[in-house]
Amino acid sequence: MGPHSRKIKGENHSFTDLKRLKKDKKKLKEEKLLKLMDDGSVDPKCTIENSETKIPAMSTLSIAVPGSIIDNAQSPELRTYLGGQIARAACIFKVDEIVVFDDLGNRNIADNSIQEDMEGRIVRHCCIQLARILQYLECPQYLRKYFFPIHKDLQYAGLLNPLDAPHHMRQNDKFSYREGVTTNLPAKAGKGSVVNCGLLKDVSVDKNLTPGIRVTVKLLQSREGSKKIHGIIVPPSLPSAETGVYWGYTVRIAQSLGEVFSQAPYTGGYDLTIGTSERGNKVDDIPQRSLQYSHAVVVFGGLHGLEAALDNDEVLTVDDPALVFDHYLNTCSGQGSRTIRTEEAILISLAELRSKLIPKLNSPVGK
Amino acid sequence: MGPHSRKIKGENHSFTDLKRLKKDKKKLKEEKLLKLMDDGSVDPKCTIENSETKIPAMSTLSIAVPGSIIDNAQSPELRTYLGGQIARAACIFKVDEIVVFDDLGNRNIADNSIQEDMEGRIVRHCCIQLARILQYLECPQYLRKYFFPIHKDLQYAGLLNPLDAPHHMRQNDKFSYREGVTTNLPAKAGKGSVVNCGLLKDVSVDKNLTPGIRVTVKLLQSREGSKKIHGIIVPPSLPSAETGVYWGYTVRIAQSLGEVFSQAPYTGGYDLTIGTSERGNKVDDIPQRSLQYSHAVVVFGGLHGLEAALDNDEVLTVDDPALVFDHYLNTCSGQGSRTIRTEEAILISLAELRSKLIPKLNSPVGK
Ligand SMILES: C[S@@+](CC[C@H](N)C(=O)[O-])C[C@H]1O[C@@H](n2cnc3c(N)ncnc32)[C@H](O)[C@@H]1O
Ligand SMILES: C[S@@+](CC[C@H](N)C(=O)[O-])C[C@H]1O[C@@H](n2cnc3c(N)ncnc32)[C@H](O)[C@@H]1O
Repeated sequence: MGPHSRKIKGENHSFTDLKRLKKDKKKLKEEKLLKLMDDGSVDPKCTIENSETKIPAMSTLSIAVPGSIIDNAQSPELRTYLGGQIARAACIFKVDEIVVFDDLGNRNIADNSIQEDMEGRIVRHCCIQLARILQYLECPQYLRKYFFPIHKDLQYAGLLNPLDAPHHMRQNDKFSYREGVTTNLPAKAGKGSVVNCGLLKDVSVDKNLTPGIRVTVKLLQSREGSKKIHGIIVPPSLPSAETGVYWGYTVRIAQSLGEVFSQAPYTGGYDLTIGTSERGNKVDDIPQRSLQYSHAVVVFGGLHGLEAALDNDEVLTVDDPALVFDHYLNTCSGQGSRTIRTEEAILISLAELRSKLIPKLNSPVGK
Repeated sequence: MGPHSRKIKGENHSFTDLKRLKKDKKKLKEEKLLKLMDDGSVDPKCTIENSETKIPAMSTLSIAVPGSIIDNAQSPELRTYLGGQIARAACIFKVDEIVVFDDLGNRNIADNSIQEDMEGRIVRHCCIQLARILQYLECPQYLRKYFFPIHKDLQYAGLLNPLDAPHHMRQNDKFSYREGVTTNLPAKAGKGSVVNCGLLKDVSVDKNLTPGIRVTVKLLQSREGSKKIHGIIVPPSLPSAETGVYWGYTVRIAQSLGEVFSQAPYTGGYDLTIGTSERGNKVDDIPQRSLQYSHAVVVFGGLHGLEAALDNDEVLTVDDPALVFDHYLNTCSGQGSRTIRTEEAILISLAELRSKLIPKLNSPVGK
């Protein structure tokens, strides 16, 4: 199996299957990829360093959102819908990573609201459900049946507005990259796997991969007279790096506000951190194009704001959230409503920040 | 009845009652106020010129939204929720007027989707329902039972997030203005009416008004030893003009894009009109604080954008929406999703425009 593939969910593997699979490290070469694979707190786009294809280092934009917000929704349908609102906001503003964090801490944890993830971490169900909805929406429609078996958390997924993301290709769309799933069609000796990329015909790729893995494929020009489509497996960040087209987001769960930062998946962590609050400084005082970043994260609070998230964090010892972030911003000064909801604050804040944020690293056209 | 009161809905009056009431002009001094009162296309805050209290002329911000967007929602619950999203966006950005317009024209009108309003206008049901939800949310909770009898359009109102608007006072809130409803308590000869303002005690006001009318009351300092609360009836725009506190929005229905402009309730109409579209000019090219206005309107399209609304307009003859507006703006350049939904575009656009819009007229603190 190639180093750039990723897996979101064990197809039809159960939780126990996955645990067993994980233990059998030697046997499974994709062990590294599986390490984040669990019943929800999965990074569906785990990129692993690539020796063959040189990807330019890219600036990334992350947002962090408390999982608890979906618990404030007034019905199971609206819980789901709220997840969809977050996913859409992320897509509109080309967010690369969504961190779902637990802002409630261990304190008020009720037995029926927790689940164990693959690493044995105790994770609140709201975080897992929000992460799952975000992943579900990020996955191209034609791949969902492979990665998202029927699940209670997705019971109302039919109500979700589609992301309309550019990597959600329709069958007839022509583009040099596609997301796909490795099939179990027998790969001939010395030949690579066969990948379903949502095209009429499957794609033969260069590498021999375990079936049921989500991969990014670069389609090659068909050879004259050839009936087959050929492709190569590439890192999921390549399409965006090469073409400037937004290629979706990854999702991870952080068990506290502190873990949002300490478990950043980027070398050196985030170099620009922004907290949001009605008690923050005026965003208008930040000049246009002045916030340079390699890896930026914009953090949102839940019902009780980032103050509460900080209070519930057992590692971060400061009291004032303004001390935790490079910038602590009120992105809507003079607001007419007493409170802005988290899902609204994401759209408003990312709109306000769009013209102030400047990616430092090689950034594709249109980003 | 005083000249500054307004009425949203005929309490328990039926549609026919209202028609009869309206015809009997002589008898009813509030005829002027009733002229907009109907089964939905009502301006709940019809301000009439006031000879006693001098209100400074104020800049106003309006938004116009197609009623058809709620027909694209995937369930009756989500239709309602969408109305709530529009109302909240308007409140967050202190919008003074929401115009619900028909962007579909007479063409595709189905019999079951139309209703007659009090002026005999044929109005699409989606516009009436959206207007009703917007009015419902704008009305302080303690007054809703008087103005919003049980109605199918509001069946899922329980799912709506509250506006949390400052004029939605709680019983214990102390503020010099309050919204109220005139009661049918007999006013003594030479004395004014009694108004329920959501306080423990009713308020005696200066004017003698028909029961069941929504009014804005300025509370007077209680006289030493007096058990009664006294107040005077004021125009609904006064609290905001005097204190800078946002005092809610009015709602009207326009039967076409053209009527958004031609039926503007402000003297001289709108002097700044902004259309929104992904095909508009970059909002980044508009300098900060450069859009001066007395009466601004920001117009949003529906599923098929403002182009379709213009096509369906029988009066506006131009083809290109850019010619209809002072500015035709793309407020989210480089968007990652192929489409931005209207409810998202409202938050994004108002966030982007907030620091560019400058009210010309006397504007209260914080506006
Ligand atoms: C419901 S609000 C939190 C309100 C909470 N009572 C507080 O005082 O912070 C949820 C989140 O929306 C965001 N938010 C709300 N208003 C904001 C504003 N004016 N500027 C920036 N972010 C805001 C913040 O991330 C906040 O934590
Ligand atoms: C679903 S979109 C309309 C899409 C339609 N296909 C079109 O091409 O205009 C609904 C509305 O959202 C607003 N909108 C969407 N994207 C926008 C953008 N980038 N800038 C400003 N407004 C936008 C516009 O008011 C638009 O009419």
